[in-house]
Amino acid sequence: MISDKNTTIQDIKDLVAAFVKEREWEQFHSPKNLSMSIAIEAAELMEIFQWSDGCLDDKKIEKVREELADVVIYCLCMANVTGIDLATAIKSKVAANALKYPVEKYKGRYK
Amino acid sequence: MISDKNTTIQDIKDLVAAFVKEREWEQFHSPKNLSMSIAIEAAELMEIFQWSDGCLDDKKIEKVREELADVVIYCLCMANVTGIDLATAIKSKVAANALKYPVEKYKGRYK
Amino acid sequence: MISDKNTTIQDIKDLVAAFVKEREWEQFHSPKNLSMSIAIEAAELMEIFQWSDGCLDDKKIEKVREELADVVIYCLCMANVTGIDLATAIKSKVAANALKYPVEKYKGRYK
Amino acid sequence: MISDKNTTIQDIKDLVAAFVKEREWEQFHSPKNLSMSIAIEAAELMEIFQWSDGCLDDKKIEKVREELADVVIYCLCMANVTGIDLATAIKSKVAANALKYPVEKYKGRYK
Repeated sequence: MISDKNTTIQDIKDLVAAFVKEREWEQFHSPKNLSMSIAIEAAELMEIFQWSDGCLDDKKIEKVREELADVVIYCLCMANVTGIDLATAIKSKVAANALKYPVEKYKGRYK
Repeated sequence: MISDKNTTIQDIKDLVAAFVKEREWEQFHSPKNLSMSIAIEAAELMEIFQWSDGCLDDKKIEKVREELADVVIYCLCMANVTGIDLATAIKSKVAANALKYPVEKYKGRYK
Repeated sequence: MISDKNTTIQDIKDLVAAFVKEREWEQFHSPKNLSMSIAIEAAELMEIFQWSDGCLDDKKIEKVREELADVVIYCLCMANVTGIDLATAIKSKVAANALKYPVEKYKGRYK
Repeated sequence: MISDKNTTIQDIKDLVAAFVKEREWEQFHSPKNLSMSIAIEAAELMEIFQWSDGCLDDKKIEKVREELADVVIYCLCMANVTGIDLATAIKSKVAANALKYPVEKYKGRYK
């Protein structure tokens, strides 16, 4: 069974790329359009919490799962068309954030 | 060297979780706040293309890499706090989309 | 007949405030929730242009009218709950932008 | 002194149109780009509340004023380029919402 533990980022990049290629949708996937699509899906995810007190029942978790998947799918499309290696990008960004927010100064406190 | 090919989704979930835990930032990471954060970072990614004709030089690609990493990092935080397995969620969503957009009908045509 | 020429900003602020008050929805309209709502409606407006080449037929203009109204309605709610005078705020911001983007330097060129 | 009470929507549409025209920026203001700009400014407004408990001191109100002005300015640009009368659009939308959310059913309860 597929899970985050046995799935590489390349595996899901390939899954998404195959879906797009089969439909010849690369022509619509300009980085500009993809950036809009990521933002649109992010807003749909946010809509789940628009008037919410923060409580998450099973029905809401299911909706989060679907909308979060949509955001990540478009992120993978963006990585695919721009040739970005996400593992490297995320590792670099977390390292940069670690310098920007040193533990001793930011423990329990926010930006 | 780290790359999408040798990195599992769990690996980057763990990387991000460790960063958050070290700073005791879990208290700020309600799903509602995280959904806002994903949308805010998505807008920063979009800003790169706001007035653009779509051309992507190396400097812009570098900015896309950073902003895309930020979006995905918050998506990983959301998956971490809600216990969502992203590989499963993405696989299900792509399968649902394959039914919704059958190749014979949508080849080269969009929603 | 109502039009932008014979309608003050206060008139539409009052219209929106009356709608909210009648339903006792002030309790949901925290500035935080309203900022989310503005962003969500802005994404719905953007969705009209997601895969578009930019052509606007009458049907699309009608959708823009509806979604743009939604964005502005929540902006008016935000101004109402925070006591912001929009005319003053916009006049100040345009004046600040005029200093930031002097005509001689930015004519025909963008930020 | 300018205020929402003595300023028509047309007055602020004209103010914004003059600013854009002086800089010959109409060429960048396609409806697609403006929809992105509204969403980007909406995210900057939201950023004020990203980690907030909802408390609004004077410094935050001042930031809300500025970011809200930015959102509304781009909404006015969109109305200008598409020829939308905002007073009419808002009045229609509020009337439609009044039918969709009848007082007797939605008083104190949300969508």
